[in-house]
Amino acid sequence: MVTFARGFKASGVACGLKKNGRKDLAVVVSDVPCVSAGVYTTNIVKGHSLQLTIERMRTSPVINAVVVNSGCANACVGQRGYDDALSITDYLAKRLDVDKETVLIGSTGVIGIPLNVDLIRKGIDKAVDGLSYAGGNDAMEAIMTTDTVPKLYEKEIVIGGKTVRIGGMAKGSGMIHPNMATMISIITTDVNISKEMLDKALFKVIRKTFNRVSVDGDTSVCDMCLILANKLAGNECIDEEGSEYILFEQALYEVCLNLAKAIAKDGEGATKLVEIEVVNAKSENDADLISTAIAKSPLCKTAFFGEDANWGRIITAAGYSKAYFDPDRIDIYIGELQVCRDGVALDFDEEVALGILKQSEFKILVDLKLGDEKSIMWTCDFSYDYVKINGSYRS
Amino acid sequence: MVTFARGFKASGVACGLKKNGRKDLAVVVSDVPCVSAGVYTTNIVKGHSLQLTIERMRTSPVINAVVVNSGCANACVGQRGYDDALSITDYLAKRLDVDKETVLIGSTGVIGIPLNVDLIRKGIDKAVDGLSYAGGNDAMEAIMTTDTVPKLYEKEIVIGGKTVRIGGMAKGSGMIHPNMATMISIITTDVNISKEMLDKALFKVIRKTFNRVSVDGDTSVCDMCLILANKLAGNECIDEEGSEYILFEQALYEVCLNLAKAIAKDGEGATKLVEIEVVNAKSENDADLISTAIAKSPLCKTAFFGEDANWGRIITAAGYSKAYFDPDRIDIYIGELQVCRDGVALDFDEEVALGILKQSEFKILVDLKLGDEKSIMWTCDFSYDYVKINGSYRS
Repeated sequence: MVTFARGFKASGVACGLKKNGRKDLAVVVSDVPCVSAGVYTTNIVKGHSLQLTIERMRTSPVINAVVVNSGCANACVGQRGYDDALSITDYLAKRLDVDKETVLIGSTGVIGIPLNVDLIRKGIDKAVDGLSYAGGNDAMEAIMTTDTVPKLYEKEIVIGGKTVRIGGMAKGSGMIHPNMATMISIITTDVNISKEMLDKALFKVIRKTFNRVSVDGDTSVCDMCLILANKLAGNECIDEEGSEYILFEQALYEVCLNLAKAIAKDGEGATKLVEIEVVNAKSENDADLISTAIAKSPLCKTAFFGEDANWGRIITAAGYSKAYFDPDRIDIYIGELQVCRDGVALDFDEEVALGILKQSEFKILVDLKLGDEKSIMWTCDFSYDYVKINGSYRS
Repeated sequence: MVTFARGFKASGVACGLKKNGRKDLAVVVSDVPCVSAGVYTTNIVKGHSLQLTIERMRTSPVINAVVVNSGCANACVGQRGYDDALSITDYLAKRLDVDKETVLIGSTGVIGIPLNVDLIRKGIDKAVDGLSYAGGNDAMEAIMTTDTVPKLYEKEIVIGGKTVRIGGMAKGSGMIHPNMATMISIITTDVNISKEMLDKALFKVIRKTFNRVSVDGDTSVCDMCLILANKLAGNECIDEEGSEYILFEQALYEVCLNLAKAIAKDGEGATKLVEIEVVNAKSENDADLISTAIAKSPLCKTAFFGEDANWGRIITAAGYSKAYFDPDRIDIYIGELQVCRDGVALDFDEEVALGILKQSEFKILVDLKLGDEKSIMWTCDFSYDYVKINGSYRS
């Protein structure tokens, strides 16, 4: 959780944005200023809170705190939305007695409805009073929307003889798709690292984790992944790509990977986590195109839900992905079971296939037998409940 | 239907490919040789029947007949699939006493299972015996898979004092998406037209009709639109782009448009036909990208199903479509009701919105206010039944 690393407090409160009375406002604060890095939605429509956060990440050398509300996206409401984001972060900065430029904001929820700033101010009062080194769970709860489970991960490593901790939380279960328009995730760490190396690590890791998850192919206007590093581990500053950087990057990868897979597994209405691996492609781009097409295909995803070994839909998705491959060489596996060789159906055992598809996690492997590039995507099945949840989201 | 134009006979029989005993084999035959044109799936995986048809359309100057089976896609079964397609068309050619190069074949259904050629041969015997100038409905029935209604359209025009007829049938309700990977459609006409002009008319019309329909964003490996013209109307041959060509093209547009909309309306599990129009874009490509993104978005489509005026998902889809537009200028309408102006939410009447969304057909209009290019897509909503139908297609 976000309070795993030293010197991070958090809290989560209900301020009244969610109609059902659940927690909807999270605050995360570091005892000391942090270097930070962020990755944001590629949607050209960006929520007002996110716009302010992106600006501050560009201009402010240090960050002290982040406030995130659920229940309202603060998007598409005009100038007022930006002013509201400013006013909320100003208020939190004042309450924490820090420079207002060092406070970030994220918002998630329905688009086109203004934030209720009065409720949020009162919520901030309550949240600041409740800040605690054990508040990570409350903060997690407060950023959830249609999520059914909290998504938390923690990792401890030793760098230069010092214990370094990384803890993260993520929300997201619908509107999940690369690139980085997937969710809100906040990761905190006490590592001592330069801004440049932190940027590098985050961008590299995101490409292989959060950007490889698809729930429905839609990408939202609000989403972001932020990492704050407050140096309290006391290791010597990581300012180049040596072995200590690599240790940190690997640990960050583990954190992000687990959060990303948790998002796919908790996809709206999902009953299964499916790993799509494409291997031996001519280029990484080809592999990405195919894994993404399969992960997005409503026909593949409903077949996963129906536990139907309908691999024809997998080869079909590969075929329209715009990737280069030879249809007469492609092999397809469901779990360990090969169902297609050289583009031709094998007479496989349907019972064995069903046994694999009945599992809550399984893998689809596509072997192009052309080169040595590969790609992995994590996706989920498409169920009745996806339709139910999204047919009536606003009500 | 395909027997509307003079000199076209058809029939449809049950030969046993569909487990439920329904009709699954259609034959369409012209009394005299036809010029023809075709458009095919862009999927790089192509069914074996389609491969043979594409070859023959390239090499044979005239076409006499088409056989289409449902219940089996004849795809991804190796060399055998191509040999089966050859053997079936050879058999039909022999029964009709025509050159085998003038017979085409289409197959639709499950991928990875070989055709039962014995059953089809017996079916062809029955179908040839039953050929009739009133057989269009039977042929239509025999090409249906998950379709719930037949899709037929007929148009009569006068060209150079002669009555010209165009009749078409189409099947398709899932795996429907541009480009041309949408369905099987066979259109017959008695117009006298050159091959070159027929090609031109079909390609031009397809772009604005069948290629503007999306059910689930998936594109199949088998699908095609064929048009056969047998000259029996007796008009002077249309061999240039004059007023007579334009009359014909407009009539063909009407036929294809109505078949295409029928496909979207009959999308698997669909309860609504939704027209997505994007206007005043800087380029036609931008308009296409946005209309397509909205038409494909599972979040927009589940909101249509839920009759939820959640236009935030529409602007979101526009935002990730990769089209150029100004998020601070975009207007969005649900039916006649404006819900967003200059990228900002309007305080619209939810009851009015609900009244529009409750209709079985409505329109979403996105005005970019940047240029004068536009694009239309027809799509359907995403319901529980889509998931149900596709979770168990093979069983």
